[in-house]
Formats: sequence, structure tokens, C-alpha cells
Amino acid sequence: MEHLEIERKFLVKSEAYKKAASTSTRIVQGFLNTDPKRTVRVRIKGDKGFLTVKGESNESGTTRFEWETQINLVEATNLIDLCEAVILEKMRFEVPYKKHLFEVDEFLGENKGLVVAEVELQHEDEIFEKPDWLGAEVTGEVKYYNSQLSKVPFCKW
Amino acid sequence: MEHLEIERKFLVKSEAYKKAASTSTRIVQGFLNTDPKRTVRVRIKGDKGFLTVKGESNESGTTRFEWETQINLVEATNLIDLCEAVILEKMRFEVPYKKHLFEVDEFLGENKGLVVAEVELQHEDEIFEKPDWLGAEVTGEVKYYNSQLSKVPFCKW
Repeated sequence: MEHLEIERKFLVKSEAYKKAASTSTRIVQGFLNTDPKRTVRVRIKGDKGFLTVKGESNESGTTRFEWETQINLVEATNLIDLCEAVILEKMRFEVPYKKHLFEVDEFLGENKGLVVAEVELQHEDEIFEKPDWLGAEVTGEVKYYNSQLSKVPFCKW
Repeated sequence: MEHLEIERKFLVKSEAYKKAASTSTRIVQGFLNTDPKRTVRVRIKGDKGFLTVKGESNESGTTRFEWETQINLVEATNLIDLCEAVILEKMRFEVPYKKHLFEVDEFLGENKGLVVAEVELQHEDEIFEKPDWLGAEVTGEVKYYNSQLSKVPFCKW
């Protein structure tokens, strides 16, 4: 399935999002290519595998072409073995707030200490209400791309 | 679907393979990553799309991990637009000979003039009979990898 992914990304100021979360799922992911022009990601989310290709962002960093397919879990594990270091691990919390769903990623391992929230939008200038725990916007900042966190993890910033 | 791809590659001495071919199909393909450690290929073969990931070859160049999934043709076209230049075009002839199937690729575009044949094997030291048109072996020679032909095409050799 392909679509234009339109999303904004923020830092997180407090752990209040955890109380408001509807689900939390462990994610392990690696990259077969970290080039922002053609990112290829292998992800295990809970008990499901996914392969995802993303294109380059537009100027504001909000919108990217995204193609994703679900794949077999064993195959996903084998594909992660082919990925570039570092393999990312994080807990993802789904946090509904007003009319939007925020996805909060609490990174583990070499990115421990980093927590970011993303909200997916229907169009670039869509208005959404911000929960109290939402911090500074980092949309389009390349160092926060997961593909870049796998090359230069948070512990090295 | 994943498996270990075991194959040997040869140059082709004459056009005799064309008379013996059972099918010929146009292939267009690009690479989302040309790194031989984690090649990611998008292919349109006839009217079907495929996404294929290959790992590093063993020492003899005969065996590689390969994972492939069929994908939607429109999506394949969009993914090829994300690929690194050069997009490869070739005609593939399937040529049965004795107990084996040879796949002969006649390259077009910037690789015009290059014709290579591959035979897939069940194990590395499997014996197979060679047709008269089969030339020198080039198994494991990186410059003949399709991923490398997309970076340094035959016209620049």
C-alpha cells in the first residue's frame, strides 16, 4: 500500500502521555538503506513484520511518499540481520488526544533518553490540539529521522 | 519468500540461445540500494512487479540469501521512480538445456552489447551440461552484478 505520509514530529516534555495511552507495542527495526531519498525499513511491531520504503521529504519536512507491505515475521527477522547497524528498539504508545492520534516513541538501547511524538495529518496545514506533554517541534530535522538514529544514535549527540 | 540463491553466471558467445528459448520477457529494474551486502531491487517483469532483497555472496560468489515478494505493478512503477540511476532494461530469455534452465539476459540501453547467462543450481558443486553458446564464467565478478551495472553500465567499461 502506498500513500503520502503527512506528519509532524515533536519532542515530549513529560511522561504524562503514558497515562493517556491506549496501547503500547515494542518495535524493533533496521534499515536496508538509510538514504533519506530512498529509505528502506524492516520493522517488527509486536508480532507483525513490515517492509517500508520512504521517499524524500518535501521542503517543510512534513510530507513523504511511503509504501509499506506486511511480511512474514521470520522473514522480517532474517531481513533485520541484513540491515545496517544500529538496530533500533523502542516502545510505541498510541495516545488519542481530542480528534487526533499521537504516536509517542520511547527509544531504548543506544537511543535511550529520547522520546518523540508524531501526529499524522490529512493535509499539511491541518490544525490539531496539542496535549500538555508535547514539547518543541522537530519536523524535518534530519537527526531525528529513525534512519539517522540508526547511524548516529542519541547517546552520541 | 526467502531462500538461498545458488547460481553461476557466464558470458554468451553467440545468439544461438534465441532459437532454443522457450520464453522472452522484458525486464525493467532499479535499485533502492546497490550495496552488495544488502541489495534492494525493484523489478517489473512483463506485467508483474517484484521487490527483492539480496544479502552478501559467499566467497565463491555462487550463493546469496534472497528474499522476494510480488508487488502491485503501479506501486512497482512508483518505487522505480525512487531508485538510484541507472534504471536497467533487458530482455530475458528462458532457455532449457538438458536438465537445467538457463536465463539469458540481453541488456538494453546503456548496457547494450552485454549478454549474460545464469543457471540456478540446487547445490554449489552441482554438475550441469553446457550449451555451445555458453562462454567464459564470470560468477562472483562484481562488475557483472546488475546492481553494479546500474552504477557503471557496460558502455563505460
